[in-house]
Amino acid sequence: MISTPYLLFLGDAADPLAAKVAQGIKDWRPELCVGQLRLEGCNADMGLEDLSIAEAVARGAKTMVIGVANRGGFISDSWRVVLKQALENGLDLASGLHNLLREEQDLVLVADQNGRSLHDVRIPSVRYPIATGVKRHGKRCLAVGTDCSVGKMYTALCMEKVMRERNMKATFRATGQTGILITGDGVPLDAVIADFMAGSIEYLTPDNDDDHWDLIEGQGSLYHASYSGVTLALVHGGQPDALILCHEPTRDHMRGLPDYQQPSLEELRDTALTLARVVNPDVKVVGISINTAALSPEDAKALCEKTEAEMGLPTVDPFRHGADRLVDALEA
Amino acid sequence: MISTPYLLFLGDAADPLAAKVAQGIKDWRPELCVGQLRLEGCNADMGLEDLSIAEAVARGAKTMVIGVANRGGFISDSWRVVLKQALENGLDLASGLHNLLREEQDLVLVADQNGRSLHDVRIPSVRYPIATGVKRHGKRCLAVGTDCSVGKMYTALCMEKVMRERNMKATFRATGQTGILITGDGVPLDAVIADFMAGSIEYLTPDNDDDHWDLIEGQGSLYHASYSGVTLALVHGGQPDALILCHEPTRDHMRGLPDYQQPSLEELRDTALTLARVVNPDVKVVGISINTAALSPEDAKALCEKTEAEMGLPTVDPFRHGADRLVDALEA
Repeated sequence: MISTPYLLFLGDAADPLAAKVAQGIKDWRPELCVGQLRLEGCNADMGLEDLSIAEAVARGAKTMVIGVANRGGFISDSWRVVLKQALENGLDLASGLHNLLREEQDLVLVADQNGRSLHDVRIPSVRYPIATGVKRHGKRCLAVGTDCSVGKMYTALCMEKVMRERNMKATFRATGQTGILITGDGVPLDAVIADFMAGSIEYLTPDNDDDHWDLIEGQGSLYHASYSGVTLALVHGGQPDALILCHEPTRDHMRGLPDYQQPSLEELRDTALTLARVVNPDVKVVGISINTAALSPEDAKALCEKTEAEMGLPTVDPFRHGADRLVDALEA
Repeated sequence: MISTPYLLFLGDAADPLAAKVAQGIKDWRPELCVGQLRLEGCNADMGLEDLSIAEAVARGAKTMVIGVANRGGFISDSWRVVLKQALENGLDLASGLHNLLREEQDLVLVADQNGRSLHDVRIPSVRYPIATGVKRHGKRCLAVGTDCSVGKMYTALCMEKVMRERNMKATFRATGQTGILITGDGVPLDAVIADFMAGSIEYLTPDNDDDHWDLIEGQGSLYHASYSGVTLALVHGGQPDALILCHEPTRDHMRGLPDYQQPSLEELRDTALTLARVVNPDVKVVGISINTAALSPEDAKALCEKTEAEMGLPTVDPFRHGADRLVDALEA
């Protein structure tokens, strides 16, 4: 569990896309952000106050989150100076980078000297159990996609936001690096050992109040040849009561797999339901989330209406139209 | 890749079951076994000649395989003496134990001094790639089960034996620790990192002659809440042309999951086909393998006949009745 609030480190981000982790935190947990720290040449801006490390500490920051991808896959000297300074001033560090903070000897040394923690959310920090399949209390909703990267995380976060506005009990459960940095906790599922995947999701979504909803971040796709096993572990470990189908309508082929086409929403619905019923006979598909970022407002609206008529399920782009209708469906 | 032939180390096996890894090697690769080595109190016997390490080396042994589970989960002093002696006499060691040889400092030292290898097949020794889903040459057959431990490995090994007798090109592809020790090679799939599971199976079953069959060892079950993700990675990484359904007819519940029942063979057939078609639209279920070890000969025969009539597929217990009819189905 990462201590909050955060100072967001944007480094020398080449462009806004390089800082998408910081953007996610700013979009979904603005109350956790005391400010941003940018180096010379930074081309990203979260619209937060630019703070020195000392200023951030004075405002209560507990952790500096590396919210930017590093250039060239290594930690540059200009970053290193700032990271050490953060540790020396009492901040923990949190990172989703592929190269791990814990493998940088100088950072480990400074962290030890100052009693600080280095959080590498790329890899698990817990020994997860084998899944038991025992029925748990509380409700769970899982987003499943026709493909990878179709908006499953944003769908769950949009729904959580609406549910909290309605004073419903709801918790977004992160299963990927960005999600973990946004919420400060979660399971980096793609880095878990095969035998413990489903168990890690049971661990992430434990017994809860009967009227509490876990909104579980989806990963991969049951139809993605590279990652489908990860997805099925989510379905069986997550024991979902409700499924949301997620789709991106403009793909030529499955992400990273030029020879593969996305399944239809009907196919995804039937396959996901068949598999989810193994752990919960009462599971239902309650709605559809379409990522319409590449469409005009008119085309987005028309596609959602057409899909809704065809599938008989509330269909929205939750980021564009809000997630209210998906939450209505959960409540019904 | 583990060097052969083997000396089978049976240690102080409490009973024959404790030496089931050695039994598997003896049953399926007798030509790889130069003999066995037993310690005082050993209650297992493979029917092989009892050899000293020096005798085994003289007969060409290259590796001593630990074919027995260790008592108490640690390597006892009586074992340690023999393991070191094997290394000093020029043998490699291979083990599927949970506690790793490579974590025993004295064994590592002796192995280094003598230029020998310690093979811990419990964990991967390869950095596997992400699966690409690219169609490969050659044919692949995968056993899928209604549950874990229903005879998938034995089914594949029985089929390989028949195919080799018929001079067909066939290779058993091990995906578990016992299978790896039997064949000297394979992927310990349950210990692979989630993102690389399907890729490890692509790596295990590469391009081959068009008339070559890989017989892929199954793992888990699509219906097993703890391990289903591992199974789906096998289906999508393995790109099977043929599926064999495996079943054990006397289970009260899914293995390790008291609240869960096995699916019917019809359910397994439909779900496995739907998922396997994602990577190979021409995949077929060609036969059924029933583990009848707990049934009388008459009941076994009657159950196979009944299942064959109901499912319209050749149905045998390959260990009891031979795998010929399953191989006939592959050829057809």
